[in-house]
Amino acid sequence: MVQLGLVGLGKMGFNMRERLRAAGHDVVGYDRNPEVSDSESLADLVGKLAAPRVVWVMVPSGQPTRDTVAELGELLSEGDLVIDGGNSRYTDDKGNAEVLAKQGVGYLDCGVSGGVWGKENGYGLMVGGEREQVDRAMPIFDALRPEGPREEGFAHAGKVGAGHYAKMVHNGIEYGLMQAYAEGYELLEAADEVTDVAATFKAWTRGTVVRSWLLDLLVKALEEDKGLTGISGYVEDSGEGRWTVEEAIAHGVPAPVISAALFARFASRQEDSPAMKAVAALRNQFGGHAVHKAGPSSGHGTTA
Amino acid sequence: MVQLGLVGLGKMGFNMRERLRAAGHDVVGYDRNPEVSDSESLADLVGKLAAPRVVWVMVPSGQPTRDTVAELGELLSEGDLVIDGGNSRYTDDKGNAEVLAKQGVGYLDCGVSGGVWGKENGYGLMVGGEREQVDRAMPIFDALRPEGPREEGFAHAGKVGAGHYAKMVHNGIEYGLMQAYAEGYELLEAADEVTDVAATFKAWTRGTVVRSWLLDLLVKALEEDKGLTGISGYVEDSGEGRWTVEEAIAHGVPAPVISAALFARFASRQEDSPAMKAVAALRNQFGGHAVHKAGPSSGHGTTA
Amino acid sequence: MVQLGLVGLGKMGFNMRERLRAAGHDVVGYDRNPEVSDSESLADLVGKLAAPRVVWVMVPSGQPTRDTVAELGELLSEGDLVIDGGNSRYTDDKGNAEVLAKQGVGYLDCGVSGGVWGKENGYGLMVGGEREQVDRAMPIFDALRPEGPREEGFAHAGKVGAGHYAKMVHNGIEYGLMQAYAEGYELLEAADEVTDVAATFKAWTRGTVVRSWLLDLLVKALEEDKGLTGISGYVEDSGEGRWTVEEAIAHGVPAPVISAALFARFASRQEDSPAMKAVAALRNQFGGHAVHKAGPSSGHGTTA
Amino acid sequence: MVQLGLVGLGKMGFNMRERLRAAGHDVVGYDRNPEVSDSESLADLVGKLAAPRVVWVMVPSGQPTRDTVAELGELLSEGDLVIDGGNSRYTDDKGNAEVLAKQGVGYLDCGVSGGVWGKENGYGLMVGGEREQVDRAMPIFDALRPEGPREEGFAHAGKVGAGHYAKMVHNGIEYGLMQAYAEGYELLEAADEVTDVAATFKAWTRGTVVRSWLLDLLVKALEEDKGLTGISGYVEDSGEGRWTVEEAIAHGVPAPVISAALFARFASRQEDSPAMKAVAALRNQFGGHAVHKAGPSSGHGTTA
Repeated sequence: MVQLGLVGLGKMGFNMRERLRAAGHDVVGYDRNPEVSDSESLADLVGKLAAPRVVWVMVPSGQPTRDTVAELGELLSEGDLVIDGGNSRYTDDKGNAEVLAKQGVGYLDCGVSGGVWGKENGYGLMVGGEREQVDRAMPIFDALRPEGPREEGFAHAGKVGAGHYAKMVHNGIEYGLMQAYAEGYELLEAADEVTDVAATFKAWTRGTVVRSWLLDLLVKALEEDKGLTGISGYVEDSGEGRWTVEEAIAHGVPAPVISAALFARFASRQEDSPAMKAVAALRNQFGGHAVHKAGPSSGHGTTA
Repeated sequence: MVQLGLVGLGKMGFNMRERLRAAGHDVVGYDRNPEVSDSESLADLVGKLAAPRVVWVMVPSGQPTRDTVAELGELLSEGDLVIDGGNSRYTDDKGNAEVLAKQGVGYLDCGVSGGVWGKENGYGLMVGGEREQVDRAMPIFDALRPEGPREEGFAHAGKVGAGHYAKMVHNGIEYGLMQAYAEGYELLEAADEVTDVAATFKAWTRGTVVRSWLLDLLVKALEEDKGLTGISGYVEDSGEGRWTVEEAIAHGVPAPVISAALFARFASRQEDSPAMKAVAALRNQFGGHAVHKAGPSSGHGTTA
Repeated sequence: MVQLGLVGLGKMGFNMRERLRAAGHDVVGYDRNPEVSDSESLADLVGKLAAPRVVWVMVPSGQPTRDTVAELGELLSEGDLVIDGGNSRYTDDKGNAEVLAKQGVGYLDCGVSGGVWGKENGYGLMVGGEREQVDRAMPIFDALRPEGPREEGFAHAGKVGAGHYAKMVHNGIEYGLMQAYAEGYELLEAADEVTDVAATFKAWTRGTVVRSWLLDLLVKALEEDKGLTGISGYVEDSGEGRWTVEEAIAHGVPAPVISAALFARFASRQEDSPAMKAVAALRNQFGGHAVHKAGPSSGHGTTA
Repeated sequence: MVQLGLVGLGKMGFNMRERLRAAGHDVVGYDRNPEVSDSESLADLVGKLAAPRVVWVMVPSGQPTRDTVAELGELLSEGDLVIDGGNSRYTDDKGNAEVLAKQGVGYLDCGVSGGVWGKENGYGLMVGGEREQVDRAMPIFDALRPEGPREEGFAHAGKVGAGHYAKMVHNGIEYGLMQAYAEGYELLEAADEVTDVAATFKAWTRGTVVRSWLLDLLVKALEEDKGLTGISGYVEDSGEGRWTVEEAIAHGVPAPVISAALFARFASRQEDSPAMKAVAALRNQFGGHAVHKAGPSSGHGTTA
């Protein structure tokens, strides 16, 4: 049994607290929302932990995480440890580690995958940082990761930053996987041949080459809403897909699938595409092809 | 001066008749629309031509062209010549040639590029068929092609089918070119840096590496409608782009750019993307990410 | 216990015979290779089966399958049933069914997924054809599919052709999935951040969003050959990926990910890319950029 | 007639000096290579110019340009002007302008297109900065740009950074255009239909929709080396393509064509693709498909 502080009790942090407590650990949570928080402030949280302390940060990536780490740096003492379990860009990790190192506080970055199912199934974990810090936090990682051999749900991926780098690539791959299933889904729906698309996807869940957890989830979604009639094809992206393509560019690595998946999301959010307006304008210019006129009430307008 | 029949007096055929007549040729046109037609029927057209006859077919590709060629085969005589100047798939040409050969009628396929501007500028021509037939029709080709050296606006590309094959690839390239300009246009519009996008495109029309006729047309379109506000980003495709990708697949040739341009057109015509509905459903399943609900009044719906 | 004939005892057919026999069925196999065959000819095979017969065809797609079906049509009798379990293009199924229907022989097409692991894990099955024929063959399907609920490893996807259509799309998705993992693998190897790439992929096998059977296999491959040093990046494609993109085009469905995966395979097989020679030539023309000269001993040559 | 300093007399700078002098301007050049330099050092260059001075910087982008600007900042005086005509990333421009502003020195960024042909044809120019500085440098711009209306070869695109932003997008478009022609070229070469590919490209140079300067250059390259046999398909990229895709990502703009063109260049430089090794490994794992073994003497190895 170990004690730890947990900052950020949103969808992910809240579930992780549950799983850690179920494993017998002593978790003191802090969140701005007093209804879920175990402490009144970061300072209060730190005060409730016995040194040497471990504090897991699970807040939105970017400024919120950097600010939380910096504030913790001022509250914690030599020998304490901060673990950033959020979706930070790996380039933030070095700075976070340096800020804390000035106070003698250690730092690990931990990519966490598993979504809302992690509470029950366990989370896949990828960690970056020094070996001794990783060893020290191992009881926490063991509680969060799925049951089974440790190496199937946990990796010490490298030095500081490696955990978030691995998580970034994980999510980049995830974009590609989702888009592959999605294209297949659209084609099956568009063609007349397969009359029960949902049943076909379900039949792929055992034995086939494409079986996966994402496939299981798509089957579940189709069982809940055959035809996905209640869902709009509007898809956000949350950073890791963009960063993966940027890293691919930085390393001269071709990433046609991951970038195509990312661009499909961008396009999904456009009411009308400026690029395609330009193509339509060009066709009209050289061929006299009719354009669809833009109108106030419609994304696509009417044929001119 | 030569005499020829011209079947199909739509946007392209009408202009070509003008250009041919301006060059001094004797053109007898036929179109189902009596207002533009010079003859009452295909038979009437054939009857008005002196043997050996040349008939240029300029009707929609596919069944209409195949039907017209077959009908001409029955009306024409040994030694006559048919030229298909439409956008037929090259796979149609062999069949057309065979149908006509049974009557001793020759056949050429001619890819024609230039759009509505061809009447004034001349048309780029790519011809497939036997050398002697090509030579025989050369006065017609010379009248249709742009002024200047023959080889800069005309090619005898190969045997029957080669003209339409070349035109198909020409149009596949055209898809890629248009999409490249369009992506650049969208990015310039999206960013704040360049405050006069239309002026920037105009400044590219001389001296730069990207100068082209399509660029000139985009500049013209932007001068007519800065911001392209009156045009919807809904873009048709007319066959050659699809065929080009299919040929690339058949020959194991990577065609990432031409296919991306084609798929962008497909996507431009979707009110909502089934594929992206599947991606949104997956994100909702694993991460509890909110979906945009599909609604009756909107392509994208409202956040759930 | 049912009796069936099984034509084609290659990698797939051989394993399927094992699995069917292990389930207690009476399988009479035929293969041109006498070492594995239970019968001397197709006629001998048919002679060894009691009417009404069921014959499963598991030979290479295209002409070999069409020929086998046609030959079976002549050997079988009214009331018999042929099941094509190979990777035929769905467009072949209608013809196969018609050929057999003339003899009163039924036809089912069955997409089979699972590879060499199917013998042990069972095969995912997607079937097209009439309901009564499907019901009749159900003991065979139940023996081949994985244990567990029938609908998780078996679907009656639609009429004749639907089974192969579903399998085609399944494989198209598979192309995209594999490429997504592959791009992530290459990026992790290219970057310095993650020092143990194999361990990172292994850590994704439980709990993460990207966990899948293909991931398990990639982990296995990396355990057998860290760095994949013994494998060349030369990848065949076997039809279904091409057909999927062609179907996407036919239905106006954007398929950027599946097509990118297909094109990456095409490119992987080129010693030198004619397209990139053209790009290099262009850069040299406008910018005086040095080209790499093609040489007899190298794919890439030396800098000029 | 104006006087200006010109730093960097490489392929571009050397030609620009020629064009400026041919227009009657007084150019004092500086280059590390004394054989082409008109001055011994940057300080010497500045000393040879009468205040208020204009210095055009034409050195490699990144650190060399930043260093040159910084050094000029120390040598120049209030009222002088520096123009960066190199291929700097637009994000460098603000810093450059600030460094110079401290000395009261003005700054313009100018994207320059036209390659080695600019000396004769003139260069397309896109400028960012303050109006009064632009006006002041107009005689220089007018000498460098092509003859004809100013707005067809010159744009004041916006504030500092806009010139390089426009040039970046220009080059991103250029990547897409080149790849489109290249894919068409490869397909024509791969297919048997068109027997004279070079003649077909030449026939596209007048009248067609795809006519462009890049097409003219490809025709020239094919005339010099039919089949491009002397050129390897190894293609560098020089920054702007990468930046364009990064900017597209930053603005949520789909850029499938430009990114595909960029990734094709990355792939062209790989002896063997780690990603495709992973795909080959996967196919071997699930299907027992033979892999090509990597060998010391070959990019692709032999079939196992």
